[in-house]
Amino acid sequence: MLQRSTCHSERSEESNPYSSKIMLIKQLSIFLENKRGRFTEIANILGDAGINMTAFTVAENSDFGILRIIVSDPDKAKEILREARFAVSVTDVVCLQCPNVPGSLAKAMNIITAAGIFIEYMYAFSVGQAALVVIRPDNLEKCIEVLTQNKLELLAASELYKL
Amino acid sequence: MLQRSTCHSERSEESNPYSSKIMLIKQLSIFLENKRGRFTEIANILGDAGINMTAFTVAENSDFGILRIIVSDPDKAKEILREARFAVSVTDVVCLQCPNVPGSLAKAMNIITAAGIFIEYMYAFSVGQAALVVIRPDNLEKCIEVLTQNKLELLAASELYKL
Amino acid sequence: MLQRSTCHSERSEESNPYSSKIMLIKQLSIFLENKRGRFTEIANILGDAGINMTAFTVAENSDFGILRIIVSDPDKAKEILREARFAVSVTDVVCLQCPNVPGSLAKAMNIITAAGIFIEYMYAFSVGQAALVVIRPDNLEKCIEVLTQNKLELLAASELYKL
Amino acid sequence: MLQRSTCHSERSEESNPYSSKIMLIKQLSIFLENKRGRFTEIANILGDAGINMTAFTVAENSDFGILRIIVSDPDKAKEILREARFAVSVTDVVCLQCPNVPGSLAKAMNIITAAGIFIEYMYAFSVGQAALVVIRPDNLEKCIEVLTQNKLELLAASELYKL
Repeated sequence: MLQRSTCHSERSEESNPYSSKIMLIKQLSIFLENKRGRFTEIANILGDAGINMTAFTVAENSDFGILRIIVSDPDKAKEILREARFAVSVTDVVCLQCPNVPGSLAKAMNIITAAGIFIEYMYAFSVGQAALVVIRPDNLEKCIEVLTQNKLELLAASELYKL
Repeated sequence: MLQRSTCHSERSEESNPYSSKIMLIKQLSIFLENKRGRFTEIANILGDAGINMTAFTVAENSDFGILRIIVSDPDKAKEILREARFAVSVTDVVCLQCPNVPGSLAKAMNIITAAGIFIEYMYAFSVGQAALVVIRPDNLEKCIEVLTQNKLELLAASELYKL
Repeated sequence: MLQRSTCHSERSEESNPYSSKIMLIKQLSIFLENKRGRFTEIANILGDAGINMTAFTVAENSDFGILRIIVSDPDKAKEILREARFAVSVTDVVCLQCPNVPGSLAKAMNIITAAGIFIEYMYAFSVGQAALVVIRPDNLEKCIEVLTQNKLELLAASELYKL
Repeated sequence: MLQRSTCHSERSEESNPYSSKIMLIKQLSIFLENKRGRFTEIANILGDAGINMTAFTVAENSDFGILRIIVSDPDKAKEILREARFAVSVTDVVCLQCPNVPGSLAKAMNIITAAGIFIEYMYAFSVGQAALVVIRPDNLEKCIEVLTQNKLELLAASELYKL
């Protein structure tokens, strides 16, 4: 089940000047030099190592793909994928948790837009009562700041990796 | 909660020559001619109309984005977005549901790869005990066929739109 | 033939505070909602209107394409393409002209990198003794400034559109 | 100057069952895991090795780029870039040469579309009296066949690499 940040933990983080660090999620980006079969290989490598995939999306063109992935253990995943000679890089993202009702994502987007934050890309899924949104903003610190100020729920790395 | 296809319904669908039609999910693709603000506008339009977003991802380059989205009512969403002068098109995809344990997606990927099916792109999220994977294969009929033959769980449109 | 900026014109432009405006080239970006046939339609529309294409490239993914194009008359092209119901937007780019010898582009790239300028994308072609490079930097003014300071040849809009 | 295929050479190639092989151009695709500085590094490596770039384009998203490039010596370029630890792959493309007049590209595109050929992506530049178009079709053999049957000028690898 989703482990939601409670009001208590949010308040304590707001008083912590380093709280935004806690909210940064490490996304791995992996180059797929052909789309046929390479993703399967990655799924096998991570599955064999007991690493779970929380979310992923493939940004593709005709020839290639870039797999963007959130996993249960990003440091270990990066290491074993590099050992298997994949080109892997790490990007910080934020993960927003919304109630799964019409309009709840719109509310978050309005806050982000009003703050002048630019979203490079994002991807999301909703299941049951919750929606999770992975966001890559141009300004991570500010994005975390305005979302938490407006009482939106961000997942901490420790929570997300356990989903 | 996720409404899973039971063994019963799967069996009855296998004997139905039109079952693959039931399993096709309509994904909307919407052109975002700039990334700042346009997604927010879409979220507002859909939220105001009571349409829920089940999953989405943005395929982007430096200037533009293409929003790929699964919504609770794709026909209505297409209509109101076109009225708001968005360029919208419809693509059929399949939605696979896996148990949220390491290796379960790898199993599905191995089946797809072994069948010679090419995945144009995909995106996925896992929450709680389930992972949902939206797949755009080059051969939709064959993809549905091999996944159902191998007892993997595909979501019917009627189920997915309700998530 | 290429009409090169002579030293004279470059010097006079350096003393002109508005010179960078002269060097901005208008690139059209056109959404191709499917890749089959739509580009042909654009080529026909522009050809019928007597508009020449100086350079173009297609940034694509599996479903869609974005045509980036430099034409002889960008304002007229934008107008007639919009009349034909294409989604068209205008982006400013710079066009660098290098001698067509190994290392000449590297020299320009080193200047741009050393100045901390980020290139969003670019495309280039060389024919005969010259290479033309269309560049979309994150900072257009600065890019024009460092390239002209280093005696690299930028094409003015009036020259490029006539190529 | 451009070395055009003369009518003589075209005719002899048409009677040669291996002619389409001659017309295949090797495009290198190189993964740029960040867009800042990596292209400059490639330009330096190729420049130092005396390898010329005939054409290139960058297919990019927010994080990454894929450099598609035509060079004077693709085999050597691939080797030295791999030595420098770049991820490089080779894709066959065709290079069409058109007169640089409005409508000439439209004519070629109409032939390709009428033959049911799908263009994955393409990029082009015109200088002086000629336009060069690099095309990645889904069916290379057929694309070469219909273009040569319709008396359009394709550049042989031996010519293009010398441009």
